Amino acid sequence: MLARMVTRAINFNPGPAALPLQALTLAQEELLDFEGSGMSILEHSHRGKVYGRVHEEALQLLRELLTVPSSHRILLLQGGAHQQFAMVPLNFRSDAHAGDYVITGNWARKAFAEAERIGRPAIAADVEQNGRYLRLPDQAELQLSAAAPYVHVTSNNTLFGTQYHAFPETGSVPLVADMSSDLLSRRIDVGRFGLIYAAAQKNLGPAGVTVVILSADWLSRARTDIPEIFQYGVHARENSLYNTAPTFSIYLMRNVLRWAKERGGVPALEAESRKKAELLYALIDESGGFYANDVEPQARSHMNVVFRLPTPELDARFVREAEEAGMFGLKGHRIAGGIRASLYNPVPLEHVARLAEHMRAFRRASS
Amino acid sequence: MLARMVTRAINFNPGPAALPLQALTLAQEELLDFEGSGMSILEHSHRGKVYGRVHEEALQLLRELLTVPSSHRILLLQGGAHQQFAMVPLNFRSDAHAGDYVITGNWARKAFAEAERIGRPAIAADVEQNGRYLRLPDQAELQLSAAAPYVHVTSNNTLFGTQYHAFPETGSVPLVADMSSDLLSRRIDVGRFGLIYAAAQKNLGPAGVTVVILSADWLSRARTDIPEIFQYGVHARENSLYNTAPTFSIYLMRNVLRWAKERGGVPALEAESRKKAELLYALIDESGGFYANDVEPQARSHMNVVFRLPTPELDARFVREAEEAGMFGLKGHRIAGGIRASLYNPVPLEHVARLAEHMRAFRRASS
Repeated sequence: MLARMVTRAINFNPGPAALPLQALTLAQEELLDFEGSGMSILEHSHRGKVYGRVHEEALQLLRELLTVPSSHRILLLQGGAHQQFAMVPLNFRSDAHAGDYVITGNWARKAFAEAERIGRPAIAADVEQNGRYLRLPDQAELQLSAAAPYVHVTSNNTLFGTQYHAFPETGSVPLVADMSSDLLSRRIDVGRFGLIYAAAQKNLGPAGVTVVILSADWLSRARTDIPEIFQYGVHARENSLYNTAPTFSIYLMRNVLRWAKERGGVPALEAESRKKAELLYALIDESGGFYANDVEPQARSHMNVVFRLPTPELDARFVREAEEAGMFGLKGHRIAGGIRASLYNPVPLEHVARLAEHMRAFRRASS
Repeated sequence: MLARMVTRAINFNPGPAALPLQALTLAQEELLDFEGSGMSILEHSHRGKVYGRVHEEALQLLRELLTVPSSHRILLLQGGAHQQFAMVPLNFRSDAHAGDYVITGNWARKAFAEAERIGRPAIAADVEQNGRYLRLPDQAELQLSAAAPYVHVTSNNTLFGTQYHAFPETGSVPLVADMSSDLLSRRIDVGRFGLIYAAAQKNLGPAGVTVVILSADWLSRARTDIPEIFQYGVHARENSLYNTAPTFSIYLMRNVLRWAKERGGVPALEAESRKKAELLYALIDESGGFYANDVEPQARSHMNVVFRLPTPELDARFVREAEEAGMFGLKGHRIAGGIRASLYNPVPLEHVARLAEHMRAFRRASS
């Protein structure tokens, strides 16, 4: 056993975020000698058999845990969601249209802005009010064009704490979803989507790898008049080994996926996510307005619970005293302000219970 | 001390490649608890103070070790050299011209092919003969256009084992160099280059991070009509934190750079590289043709020593017996065939001496 006794911080970071101790411990144990090869996994060729098994296991675990149908391919890429903001329209825009975008937060708006630099996207709905995004649009509100090559949504808004609990209907137009902050935290009917993308550093693993799941049929109609490095088809053909893969990030994601499977897979993680979020929302709702969450109730996120106290000074004191109690990453995004607790898969219920205790004690002390 | 006694393989992998044991051991020791923070470096926010210090140290060590003048910016990006093949012409092509490319190997040709998908590059020279690249072009041979926005070269050809020991003169046209396989292995006058890029997984660290060094003056003239994620200017403005950085890859690169500094920096690494390469070239040249290296002598690489035996069957037996003796990664690239020993910075002279012994013994046994 290499691991010393470690005092683990209570980590509510918004991403990169907490990782399962089990995934880290395994990485630590075999960091100098991977499976008796005399090399670190970091020193193995991405084209060798040893790393190849890790690569395949990560892909297979994603397929199994997310019940990805055989109609869909899984890719492991670099560049995070930001690069997907560009790659989706690069690959799938038509000459006349670069997608209908549903603007439900700052990331959705960034995705739209990047598409504007590539082609001619349209806004299907925009729920911003006074710089805030506190609800999701109704189906009837969406202005969808049959000529759009796809509809783009952001499944979870990490800044203001909203989350799609039912995705829009888009008819025969492929649905593209940025699931960077909730993939693997709940059951998803992957077959309904043309393309799903997710940077790993929330629920899936560390920074440095991006998961893309896309319909093979749709992929066959992707553009090929763009640089090869940005073509989904090239990465699919080469099984995500067109260029050197970010091998350690994929290895560590594999460790996280193994842990997720042992936990009971996505149904178990979904149940735990719900429990963690409801614990905090119940406390907020029972606080008589001391803790305020402004999000429309049916749009509340199970991943990022956002709230604010009566004054910004109290927000700051809350964060400071939480840190003194060993709880980190609670300061809200500078755009949204207030407090944000990110409850990704690796954050255990006990840590959320500790935060709830802190919230109760802080409120008592402040009233 | 967490490290068990480990038997280290002798690793001649072409990249990802050997890493300094010291860099790995430090990573292992602090993998669960980085500097007493109660979190792994993998769990820290890329915008937090703890990771911020790692980021700055990595940038500072690169500046110091490579003596990067204040006229040049250093960026830490994702996507490897392949993504740079696209980003260079995306940022710097003119409407009429996407750069003069010197084709000295397969990677140079790939860079050119990607530029062709973006604009109108030209070939300044092409040294291919019968699918092989065994020399570098003379200055007089280069067809350079004053209208070209830049001249692109590949400083080291990993497949056939050639390396620029003096870079071409390009007058007032910025020189761009892919130094993926030799940056940090020798002294470079960085100020001479408009832009240098290098994927980390040879001399600098693990896969997953790409170093770009570029002239701030030239950068100010880069295009801004492209997606933000591909704009060098955006990454420079945001100090390589425009999007989530590949934090662990940068952390491990920092560990490698610390090691490089302790070794005596680039002058010491250059001297050792020369010694390692000369050991093998001398043995090849004295083998009476048993080991053959076809590269023009003045173009021989100090990073990748490529040779072949009298028959492909002997090549295969050589590799197999080397593996039995604990030496890995010696099989030549499928395009070049034969044997390739990659001698990046972390490969110690003693390991190269072991390979030399194997070469002597194998030749004796085969004659």
